[in-house]
Amino acid sequence: MKRSRKSGISPTRSENYPEWYQQVIKAAQLADHSPVRGCMVIRPWGYAIWENMQAILDKRFKETGHQNAYFPLFIPLSYMQKEADHVEGFAKECAVVTHHRLVKDREGSLVPGGKLEEPLIVRPTSEMIIGEMFAKWITSYRDLPLLINQWANVVRWEMRTRLFLRTAEFLWQEGHTAHANREEAIQEMRKMLEIYVDFAQNRLSIPSIKGEKTEKERFPGALSTLTFEMMMQDGKALQGGTSHFLGQNFSKVSKITFSDSEGAIKHPWTTSWGITTRMIGGLIMVHADDDGLVLPPKIAPIHVVIFPLVHRAETKNSLMTYCTSLRKKLSALPYADSFLKVSIDERDMRSGEKAWDWIKKGVPIRIEVGMRELESGLLTIKKRTKNHRETETQTEEELLKTVPKQLDEMQETLLKKAELFRDSHLVKIDTQEDFYTFFHSEKGFAFAHWSGDPKIEEKVAKELGVTIRCIPEELEKTEGICPFSGEKSAQRVIFAKSY
Amino acid sequence: MKRSRKSGISPTRSENYPEWYQQVIKAAQLADHSPVRGCMVIRPWGYAIWENMQAILDKRFKETGHQNAYFPLFIPLSYMQKEADHVEGFAKECAVVTHHRLVKDREGSLVPGGKLEEPLIVRPTSEMIIGEMFAKWITSYRDLPLLINQWANVVRWEMRTRLFLRTAEFLWQEGHTAHANREEAIQEMRKMLEIYVDFAQNRLSIPSIKGEKTEKERFPGALSTLTFEMMMQDGKALQGGTSHFLGQNFSKVSKITFSDSEGAIKHPWTTSWGITTRMIGGLIMVHADDDGLVLPPKIAPIHVVIFPLVHRAETKNSLMTYCTSLRKKLSALPYADSFLKVSIDERDMRSGEKAWDWIKKGVPIRIEVGMRELESGLLTIKKRTKNHRETETQTEEELLKTVPKQLDEMQETLLKKAELFRDSHLVKIDTQEDFYTFFHSEKGFAFAHWSGDPKIEEKVAKELGVTIRCIPEELEKTEGICPFSGEKSAQRVIFAKSY
Repeated sequence: MKRSRKSGISPTRSENYPEWYQQVIKAAQLADHSPVRGCMVIRPWGYAIWENMQAILDKRFKETGHQNAYFPLFIPLSYMQKEADHVEGFAKECAVVTHHRLVKDREGSLVPGGKLEEPLIVRPTSEMIIGEMFAKWITSYRDLPLLINQWANVVRWEMRTRLFLRTAEFLWQEGHTAHANREEAIQEMRKMLEIYVDFAQNRLSIPSIKGEKTEKERFPGALSTLTFEMMMQDGKALQGGTSHFLGQNFSKVSKITFSDSEGAIKHPWTTSWGITTRMIGGLIMVHADDDGLVLPPKIAPIHVVIFPLVHRAETKNSLMTYCTSLRKKLSALPYADSFLKVSIDERDMRSGEKAWDWIKKGVPIRIEVGMRELESGLLTIKKRTKNHRETETQTEEELLKTVPKQLDEMQETLLKKAELFRDSHLVKIDTQEDFYTFFHSEKGFAFAHWSGDPKIEEKVAKELGVTIRCIPEELEKTEGICPFSGEKSAQRVIFAKSY
Repeated sequence: MKRSRKSGISPTRSENYPEWYQQVIKAAQLADHSPVRGCMVIRPWGYAIWENMQAILDKRFKETGHQNAYFPLFIPLSYMQKEADHVEGFAKECAVVTHHRLVKDREGSLVPGGKLEEPLIVRPTSEMIIGEMFAKWITSYRDLPLLINQWANVVRWEMRTRLFLRTAEFLWQEGHTAHANREEAIQEMRKMLEIYVDFAQNRLSIPSIKGEKTEKERFPGALSTLTFEMMMQDGKALQGGTSHFLGQNFSKVSKITFSDSEGAIKHPWTTSWGITTRMIGGLIMVHADDDGLVLPPKIAPIHVVIFPLVHRAETKNSLMTYCTSLRKKLSALPYADSFLKVSIDERDMRSGEKAWDWIKKGVPIRIEVGMRELESGLLTIKKRTKNHRETETQTEEELLKTVPKQLDEMQETLLKKAELFRDSHLVKIDTQEDFYTFFHSEKGFAFAHWSGDPKIEEKVAKELGVTIRCIPEELEKTEGICPFSGEKSAQRVIFAKSY
């Protein structure tokens, strides 16, 4: 009996986008809600994607001279307060440790005991604690640049949470660097943003729009924040990662100084930059479809799954021997800095159920091997970028010769599709009326002029839930008239609803 | 002018062992105290060693079928209380989060605000939160075994802390597995201990004694705890890593159940096992000498450092060209799952200062290249396992052909030396008097009989600061008489002072 199935995921994107997102995560076993409010559990399939993201970025950070280190989870309250904008930016979402043991109350229940003299903040970001250490480590221009990165968990107490996109605890990397002059620090900020953009484009097949944040949207305490903004399939923006030029703000409050080559004492110029597990949310919302997750091959934990179609017990041995040998040959092929990752699914399940399991997990290529395939020498190949019923046949020789190229083509197809979506939902808007109509009835980014007045940002945020995502660097830069104020505008900016 | 220098580190081991340990860490830039009480900063050289440890172990965990995942940092107080022994074991050292924001008090100072309904414990270990998720994920025998590992930070509020050995926050991996029967869980516990022991022996050149913990020393809530104990150069024991058989204790309190192949509902048998950043402390205290850190090649972040000896500006170019080409050739040699890691030190410093810098960091091989070496074709080689004045000369050809073998020999030398030290400080003791004399005047492990009475453990702990480190598995197992009680003893056990 064949189960009728319209799509792998219910509801579909058009039926209920937010619920579709949750169901894709559930079906692919990427993550789970935990009993701790706002904290998620990253399940093995989701964590394997994160490990791949880490490996790719870590390699690039090291190639560009950065070293990893590890700093404390806790930041004393007094340190957080050193930079006024900084503490203001994070005060509303800090987890605060106030006690260091559990003691029994009169009724014998365990309650917090051993009150700390000074409360500790669970790090929402590590500028203040790293600044303190930089002040110890840096004395001379010879110690600069100091290029440090940390892979860590951070906590920002969000009231409304969503798996990967907004959780009280998340995983990230945070780069922190100190430089002998302003220009070098600005160059570092730009270089790291480029690494992020390139990673998104060439490994995740996610196109983005890069640019600078407005003053209102900047990192608390930064002089400049660069961002790259990705368009989700519901037209909303997701901020991919940010790179900040902190000027001398943080080196002054942390009292970091160095003597330059002439012996003069100066404060270094610092940067920080980070990318988080929310990139997995972006990956889902850019590529997944109504059948579930779709993984660009260059980030997939497994590239190829082989399904032995065992219909009779007596054929099992010869099928398994063949599948094992095929896996061995495929696994020896170089792909994306390493080798092809190939798995054989021999679970005792109906083959349709198995196939759907891997479709929902987004694995790029599925190969079915039954006695028919063994006898004809033609393998049945199914690709996640095509309809789940569509089939190709390839000889083993052909497959082994071309599978990396086929994966690259899938990678490229996903990028082109995402670029097409982004370009067709990026709309030039020139009047206030069109702007309101667009955000009431359409999905996408509005590319509109803006005078630079933060009051306009407040107004559209309040009335439409729309913010300026960035002042783009590489799109058309021509002067015009701000549709909100009638004043002059230096260039168009990107407005959008966002996660 | 040559600075006279007796040893790289002051004080020496014999002058003041604990202070020597701190100074080795400082000189090698492995870690630093942080302004947060009891929390350390792991500096790049220390963190690179940890990354190597992670890479080696992670590979072995994956080869043995384990998958990584990530669970929340916070555990609700009520979850911690589910297992009585477990919460008892950790209550005295829990960091407790009680608030989720900062607010201004009447004087305008920021104070904790937004009190949580239920306090959250910063995880000291994750059994309780992982158990909760296992209960959701496991329903059938088909879901077993479930083999999960997590790389994470944990917090145990220690009052007396020491870098790497005992800090409020530390990094570790914690494996958590669930099995359909008791035997398989016990086998898992043993398998993971073997992986740790092999890792210590073959990658860190650290011999150890493996065995079971006594009931008193077991993990809170476990039915059995296996450990491997390493001997430091002051004769104290350092527990390397532990592997626990938890029976059905945790699956019962977390309500984890599965239906077996006959449909009967059962609780799975679980294990947990972990190894931490304190292994770096062990690495220091087993191998470092009075000149600083000594790194076994298979864990060293850099294997070879090349020093161009530039005495005149006009020779710089040809020296640098040669050094760069030498590095390139060396870096192409396969070594320990990857390739040789080679660095050129071209810092503008006196060459003696540079050499000491790398001696203290423990880098295995230093190669000096000056014009004399370039002209004669004989390279000057210095090895960290030999006296710092000792020199070998090798042709480039010879070096390229044999350097992996030379490193393997150094690896072996360090292991043999540590084994010799351990064996010569492991002493059979048969009377109470000898036992007390030994721990008052000698250093090392006492191998003595014990009746099994925990009162004896309490007595020697109180009077000598000595505990039973393990009931060894592979040492002599003959019956005898307990020197403390005169009662029968099944076998000798390992007594020692410990970190």
